[in-house]
Amino acid sequence: MAVIECVPNVSEGRRTDVIQRLADSLKAVPGLRVLDVQSDAAHNRSVFTLAGDAEAMVAGIPKLFEGALAAIDLRSHKGEHPRLGAVDVVPFIPIDGVTMEQCVQLAKSIAADVAARFSLPVYLYEDASSNPARKNLEDIRRGEFEGLAAKMAQPAWAPDYGPATPHQTAGATVIGARMPLIAYNINLATDRLDVARKIASAVRMSSGGLRYVKAMGIPLEDRGIVQVSMNLTNYEKTPIFRVFDLVKREAERYGVQVLESEIVGLVPAAALRQCVEYYLQLEGFSGAQVLENMLRSHHEA
Amino acid sequence: MAVIECVPNVSEGRRTDVIQRLADSLKAVPGLRVLDVQSDAAHNRSVFTLAGDAEAMVAGIPKLFEGALAAIDLRSHKGEHPRLGAVDVVPFIPIDGVTMEQCVQLAKSIAADVAARFSLPVYLYEDASSNPARKNLEDIRRGEFEGLAAKMAQPAWAPDYGPATPHQTAGATVIGARMPLIAYNINLATDRLDVARKIASAVRMSSGGLRYVKAMGIPLEDRGIVQVSMNLTNYEKTPIFRVFDLVKREAERYGVQVLESEIVGLVPAAALRQCVEYYLQLEGFSGAQVLENMLRSHHEA
Repeated sequence: MAVIECVPNVSEGRRTDVIQRLADSLKAVPGLRVLDVQSDAAHNRSVFTLAGDAEAMVAGIPKLFEGALAAIDLRSHKGEHPRLGAVDVVPFIPIDGVTMEQCVQLAKSIAADVAARFSLPVYLYEDASSNPARKNLEDIRRGEFEGLAAKMAQPAWAPDYGPATPHQTAGATVIGARMPLIAYNINLATDRLDVARKIASAVRMSSGGLRYVKAMGIPLEDRGIVQVSMNLTNYEKTPIFRVFDLVKREAERYGVQVLESEIVGLVPAAALRQCVEYYLQLEGFSGAQVLENMLRSHHEA
Repeated sequence: MAVIECVPNVSEGRRTDVIQRLADSLKAVPGLRVLDVQSDAAHNRSVFTLAGDAEAMVAGIPKLFEGALAAIDLRSHKGEHPRLGAVDVVPFIPIDGVTMEQCVQLAKSIAADVAARFSLPVYLYEDASSNPARKNLEDIRRGEFEGLAAKMAQPAWAPDYGPATPHQTAGATVIGARMPLIAYNINLATDRLDVARKIASAVRMSSGGLRYVKAMGIPLEDRGIVQVSMNLTNYEKTPIFRVFDLVKREAERYGVQVLESEIVGLVPAAALRQCVEYYLQLEGFSGAQVLENMLRSHHEA
């Protein structure tokens, strides 16, 4: 069975009854699992982590829009986090047995559906967008709800779906598909912050490094060492092992050793399998050979 | 939830009704999954692959003995595969959330139960045995059912549980705990069989190499290359990466490159995580960080 992750961000982080009602409506959808709900009162925003197949997403996401649009009026919404819509952003993330292209199609199909159903402008972003100026969430959201009418008046900001003017209470929504993020840090056996910063600069895309790496050099003051702290935004195209080997090589140039590395939070199993395949020069290996996966598929059959 | 694998071998591979009845009785046990049943008529033997927690094993395995002992009479059993008992061998294998020590205790408890219930002699083997002369299945089974009465007359072959004489129709049973086997091959970019054989000899325990490696050098004639073909019998103590690095180093000594490696069949996820942790110098990583595992635990909750 295909597993897609979906992480909708909703502009309500204070009224717990509203948040609970939205979560309950998602939990009632067959095949849709609500893995996590994080609400932040200062941000006045809630992040739902959902998992399921395309069918569950098609059934569940419009319900979330229906509940959120009925309960949220952005004209009176205040919070520290930038937002454009009552349902602000909805990324679909391929996890298992599903391609990025299938997540892009799903994002477009749900975008068309909610735009028509709720007369809501929808922008596509990340892998779902084919417009380079409208790939980054920050670019689309700049100006926020309050600046949306003026922004949408420009031809360059006509939405991908729905009306060319903002929804009166719900603004607009950004829907798309992206790879899972991996938070990956490499600790160096030195206290030289300049070395960590030079290595970060060498490996990150923004200064000439690998395409899907964001990196900075920071001190770990309690340990007297420094760290290259990274986000890997597409492990299929910029795999962990290539980042590790490059950081290690750059460190050698300064006579510095890699002390250890760490993965913070979650990582897809495929990103680990990539590393095993690389270092062991493994040919013809598939995730179906992992014993636990066989047990799982039998369990679900 | 703990996952234990159990692979009982039963001395019946021809009467499909008997084999089906045994499988059905196992499928009826709550929490016990029958992943696979392989029967071989020439061997006159069936291998059941089961998964479940300790409770499911305690409920299910005695049912298998009850059915097998009622249906099988070894006095009239013929087959190519050596066998000592109607239920010949029952290994318990730790897969997930369970230690080897817990599998050893489970093996002993089920051994005591079936020995008492069916007046059946039971030998412990592999990790469940503390007697070096009675760790290997081949040593315990030597002489087979036909030689069992004479063998058991020797004090060294008193069983661990049950009567000191064979069961008239069911012989004796070997029960124990062992790690999962990993079939791991490394292909060399050469046609020199002598090199593959020298490397096999260097890495395998029997000629001075790593403790949990069995290895031989073989030609892959259709491809014009050679292979170091291995079984890794305890990946926790002799991990895949150490075997790979040692083979690679030995190959260099003959000016030979590693072309690729391959895992044949199933591998526990932990054996792959070990490799990632080693090559990436990963600290503080746990299987709970693998995204699919989080999805799974939510699914089962």
